[in-house]
Amino acid sequence: MKIKRTFASDNNSGVHPAMWQAMQAINAGHVAAYGDDPYTGRAIAKFKEHFGDHVAVYFTFGGTAANVLSFKTVTHSFNAVICPVSAHIHTSECGAPELFTGCKLLTIPTDDGKINVEMIRHHFPHLGQFDDRDQHHVQPKVISITNATEVGTVYTPTEIKALADFAHAHKLLLHVDGARIANAAASLGVGFREITTDVGVDILSFGGTKNGLLFAEAVVFLNASLAENFKYFRKQGMQLPSKMRYISIQFETYLTNDFWRTLASHANAMARLLAHQLAEIPEVTINKPVEANGVFATLPQSIIPRLQQEHFFYVWDETTAECRLMCSFDTTEEDVSTFVAAVKRLIAES
Amino acid sequence: MKIKRTFASDNNSGVHPAMWQAMQAINAGHVAAYGDDPYTGRAIAKFKEHFGDHVAVYFTFGGTAANVLSFKTVTHSFNAVICPVSAHIHTSECGAPELFTGCKLLTIPTDDGKINVEMIRHHFPHLGQFDDRDQHHVQPKVISITNATEVGTVYTPTEIKALADFAHAHKLLLHVDGARIANAAASLGVGFREITTDVGVDILSFGGTKNGLLFAEAVVFLNASLAENFKYFRKQGMQLPSKMRYISIQFETYLTNDFWRTLASHANAMARLLAHQLAEIPEVTINKPVEANGVFATLPQSIIPRLQQEHFFYVWDETTAECRLMCSFDTTEEDVSTFVAAVKRLIAES
Amino acid sequence: MKIKRTFASDNNSGVHPAMWQAMQAINAGHVAAYGDDPYTGRAIAKFKEHFGDHVAVYFTFGGTAANVLSFKTVTHSFNAVICPVSAHIHTSECGAPELFTGCKLLTIPTDDGKINVEMIRHHFPHLGQFDDRDQHHVQPKVISITNATEVGTVYTPTEIKALADFAHAHKLLLHVDGARIANAAASLGVGFREITTDVGVDILSFGGTKNGLLFAEAVVFLNASLAENFKYFRKQGMQLPSKMRYISIQFETYLTNDFWRTLASHANAMARLLAHQLAEIPEVTINKPVEANGVFATLPQSIIPRLQQEHFFYVWDETTAECRLMCSFDTTEEDVSTFVAAVKRLIAES
Amino acid sequence: MKIKRTFASDNNSGVHPAMWQAMQAINAGHVAAYGDDPYTGRAIAKFKEHFGDHVAVYFTFGGTAANVLSFKTVTHSFNAVICPVSAHIHTSECGAPELFTGCKLLTIPTDDGKINVEMIRHHFPHLGQFDDRDQHHVQPKVISITNATEVGTVYTPTEIKALADFAHAHKLLLHVDGARIANAAASLGVGFREITTDVGVDILSFGGTKNGLLFAEAVVFLNASLAENFKYFRKQGMQLPSKMRYISIQFETYLTNDFWRTLASHANAMARLLAHQLAEIPEVTINKPVEANGVFATLPQSIIPRLQQEHFFYVWDETTAECRLMCSFDTTEEDVSTFVAAVKRLIAES
Repeated sequence: MKIKRTFASDNNSGVHPAMWQAMQAINAGHVAAYGDDPYTGRAIAKFKEHFGDHVAVYFTFGGTAANVLSFKTVTHSFNAVICPVSAHIHTSECGAPELFTGCKLLTIPTDDGKINVEMIRHHFPHLGQFDDRDQHHVQPKVISITNATEVGTVYTPTEIKALADFAHAHKLLLHVDGARIANAAASLGVGFREITTDVGVDILSFGGTKNGLLFAEAVVFLNASLAENFKYFRKQGMQLPSKMRYISIQFETYLTNDFWRTLASHANAMARLLAHQLAEIPEVTINKPVEANGVFATLPQSIIPRLQQEHFFYVWDETTAECRLMCSFDTTEEDVSTFVAAVKRLIAES
Repeated sequence: MKIKRTFASDNNSGVHPAMWQAMQAINAGHVAAYGDDPYTGRAIAKFKEHFGDHVAVYFTFGGTAANVLSFKTVTHSFNAVICPVSAHIHTSECGAPELFTGCKLLTIPTDDGKINVEMIRHHFPHLGQFDDRDQHHVQPKVISITNATEVGTVYTPTEIKALADFAHAHKLLLHVDGARIANAAASLGVGFREITTDVGVDILSFGGTKNGLLFAEAVVFLNASLAENFKYFRKQGMQLPSKMRYISIQFETYLTNDFWRTLASHANAMARLLAHQLAEIPEVTINKPVEANGVFATLPQSIIPRLQQEHFFYVWDETTAECRLMCSFDTTEEDVSTFVAAVKRLIAES
Repeated sequence: MKIKRTFASDNNSGVHPAMWQAMQAINAGHVAAYGDDPYTGRAIAKFKEHFGDHVAVYFTFGGTAANVLSFKTVTHSFNAVICPVSAHIHTSECGAPELFTGCKLLTIPTDDGKINVEMIRHHFPHLGQFDDRDQHHVQPKVISITNATEVGTVYTPTEIKALADFAHAHKLLLHVDGARIANAAASLGVGFREITTDVGVDILSFGGTKNGLLFAEAVVFLNASLAENFKYFRKQGMQLPSKMRYISIQFETYLTNDFWRTLASHANAMARLLAHQLAEIPEVTINKPVEANGVFATLPQSIIPRLQQEHFFYVWDETTAECRLMCSFDTTEEDVSTFVAAVKRLIAES
Repeated sequence: MKIKRTFASDNNSGVHPAMWQAMQAINAGHVAAYGDDPYTGRAIAKFKEHFGDHVAVYFTFGGTAANVLSFKTVTHSFNAVICPVSAHIHTSECGAPELFTGCKLLTIPTDDGKINVEMIRHHFPHLGQFDDRDQHHVQPKVISITNATEVGTVYTPTEIKALADFAHAHKLLLHVDGARIANAAASLGVGFREITTDVGVDILSFGGTKNGLLFAEAVVFLNASLAENFKYFRKQGMQLPSKMRYISIQFETYLTNDFWRTLASHANAMARLLAHQLAEIPEVTINKPVEANGVFATLPQSIIPRLQQEHFFYVWDETTAECRLMCSFDTTEEDVSTFVAAVKRLIAES
């Protein structure tokens, strides 16, 4: 059977062979469950190498949970989370944040998936000016951004710091949904610390799944004092893995010798290549800056159905025929050229 | 390094080699995420072979989630779940059922982990006799039992059917926490169907993790009409695995050629062997019927700390020095004899 | 002490004397609590006179609860409620809908507090086109509008019917927050039925408090089959009044001889008078159609603080100096002329 | 029509005339809603006279809400509340505590409605001995007792202090459900302070409704630092009364010149009278100490239906024919003698 790869999602790719090898290498024998094993400690130490000694790190099965548990740990039910309208927590988590925390999400319109201080000020002019009347209103507690964003753009350290400073000045916390934090760091040519610890991020949902890991996400509290109750919320949130050693060993592998960067840089490079080749086709428009591993391109409406049959992908905006094309750690140059050739052929045939 | 195995928990064992092989065999290439892959359909077909064509099956990361999502799908927040006081949902899920469903758990005392109709009638004499005053009271909707139980006993088909008939006569549903359902079926020498579909069980939490799988649990709705909204609750419950193919292929492997029975029968046999050898020691008492893969034995208090250092296990009841000794798919006869020898030696030394 | 009345809120007025008289007239002796008294049945019969025989009616302490319990009764936690961004449920209930139901509110921008089918279609183009991918998305179940709106405008029967037809065509329900439903009906010169039962509304939060009653709100299910579990949700929602007779007798009084209309028409008339007199002042602009009991007027910024000291009211939009002036059942023509005179005087002095 | 009073419930009585008078006296004119009125401050000052200057006081519509909001303010969702199995929060609030807080209730069996330190130690031997494994377990945070209890008994100051000391030694809080706190204080011949502030109670649900008030309950934080977020939880809990002045003026009246004691002492005296007269009937057994306003008496099963028709009351335990007879502020000596005569007559006829 011919091996198929598509541009549908970086969730559609498999697990990197290095992860299988790592997991199997520690498979024999019994170890304590729920994180009391030797591997979890080693993985956490690796996180501290990258983020700083003072961080607190917890593993979860999935990324939605990493986000929701981040909020649960630092909010009361009357709080609110400010986020871009395109945020995964708002669009694609089926109301998990609301159900599990009780909090309202307050959304800000954005074209490129990013928000800034001016946008927050414009939409929430009274932030921080609470008085007694406000018992009627939800109380913002967290600003949540996604880096890299859902539309393939990346926040710079300066942009993040501005948001963090604003948040802290208003007694808010800054959370980063880092399902693709590796792609962001690789894109910027920096380490994780420069876009989290060093610029004031309080909590990071650290993604592994979209970059080659199996069921491995983490919550990194850059400010460990916030994490006091996390372990209880994780268990109550049904996210305490019994055989945690297999998540831990993946993260240890991932964070050793910057293996994460190798994988993410490759995915990013494939996205740039794809964008470059698509941009040469007159009928195609690249709509968003290609800063991570996603390309958002408007294709001729007429070719989309047949192109999807050959190489499945998702239409991001059906009214404009904007398509989302995601590259993965295992995307090849040949995958790109085959896809671009198909686009050209279908346009020619149409 | 010497490979260590203990009797602490069937969660402490690793993943069966057949699972690694199965997962790696389907690793190459991209497939749709979230269950829209070819393997998930095949795994579901396997479940239907075992449970009947009409069932609905959904996979989750963990067992707590399988239980909680089972309840969430069939309850309103004013409902209640009746269960033994020893139930995992009551003792060991950190309030996840209450938080996620809003329901109260109504508990029944039990010595052997099992409940029966008489016990339910005794504790809830008004069940089904609801009138308008009852708006003050939670409304029972589910009876939840665990099979095999948390203390190593097993419900027979007849016992389950009596509970199911009683439940249905009172417009309740019968849920089975089957974290060790394989051990129960193996113990009884029957298939899954005889202790679920055929005796009126409505919903089953089907465990894989405790019998050699990696992050693989399932909810089986024997009555598929109950499952209508499960997929939304699963996502909102943060339990929708993106790379679901790896759960699916494990279940397919597990359910083929009764591989599940091979693993569970072995664990059960090791428990019987352990109980048999321990029973010969005058200072040791076996407290519960050894019907699955757990042995509950009272050991001399004085030897417990040193024995735990050599072979870690948990004390189940500190007031009586009753210890829980769990066998796993990978427990060996040598593990048993080494442990029993240590017990004897420590008693002799004490 | 001089009796003071302001234009701050129709919640700031007291209780109509007829209500005190009605409550005291039935005060002697014991009656069953929680609605099993003779007065509650009579009040419900009155509601049926107005809304139709088939409705189901339940009383609550407050209006936020009437809204939230309406949603709780007809939603699952993965559902969503579509509403205008100005809706009380979104702006002024401190996240009660999210906490109690788990549902997300999906908001639509609006200038006059009203939404229509085109606006809904524009913001939710995929409504009703659900497929399997949608497990990631909250599932809209309710459209909620407010009548009269938070900014003093009124939906006509035709407008409501269009929304109800659209809702039903998409398997949604139409809820009306009727905290000021009496003002809406009085404004239109119709009965309650013409803007609820007859035009397809499914659930109505029926307000009493803002029109002279004491702690008396109701949920009216125009479709009684939706109400099956309401009583349990009400108790669990901490809204089951023990001494319900005092709410019931108020509603009976309110709904007899169209007493509600007398009160609401007067408040509406005072708002029109106020708007008329303010409109004659060149420095004042009336911003919203004055269709109920509220006037939204931009006053000179410089006079607002001193005017508030004399006659307290709330600034609705601080960036534009738009002020909210609410009339009540007890507002007098003299109150209006005194206020307008103060505006003129302060403008002259400034 | 003859005025009827029964022994069914102290919720079945009406509102004391003094309350109507007080509410109407402040009815004219507008005041700020939601507690920003002059009367609420005065009522709070009255509470401080009784409980101490340092307390924080908030009003709610109902008693279930006072309990639930007490817990919500001081718990995380993974916490638990320890209470007697007969507690109103467990038996009669339809799961409101679980839904609104996420917490589990941990119940202790009791015959007389009271619990003590030994009982808590027996059921929760590990209280306060938390280690890392405990992420699986709910974490107790509150001990909740009811005073006077649901079965008419009263905790003494010494008993309460022992529970408070135990709670604080284990980093728990002591909550008192004081729906009948006035009956308890009157029974003991002490003020409120002696059974709350002075003996270490942390939070009190202070009841008004069962002693002649209309929709008036309060939460009194004896430790005001616990109350920081109460106002938000109250609004989100749908319990913020808009026309709060009418609750406040009732409490001011109630707490002036020990009016509360006059009412409660009378109800208690009527219960003692009833018990005394019933005890003289050989076929009747008084089962519980009559320390407040309730009498729990076993009546001959055969007379109960006819007696209920004449004088409605509730059977507390159908298996033993134990009946609950509640006295109220308006119960008369004639009510008692008429009832006792009916018991005697029906026994004679049977």
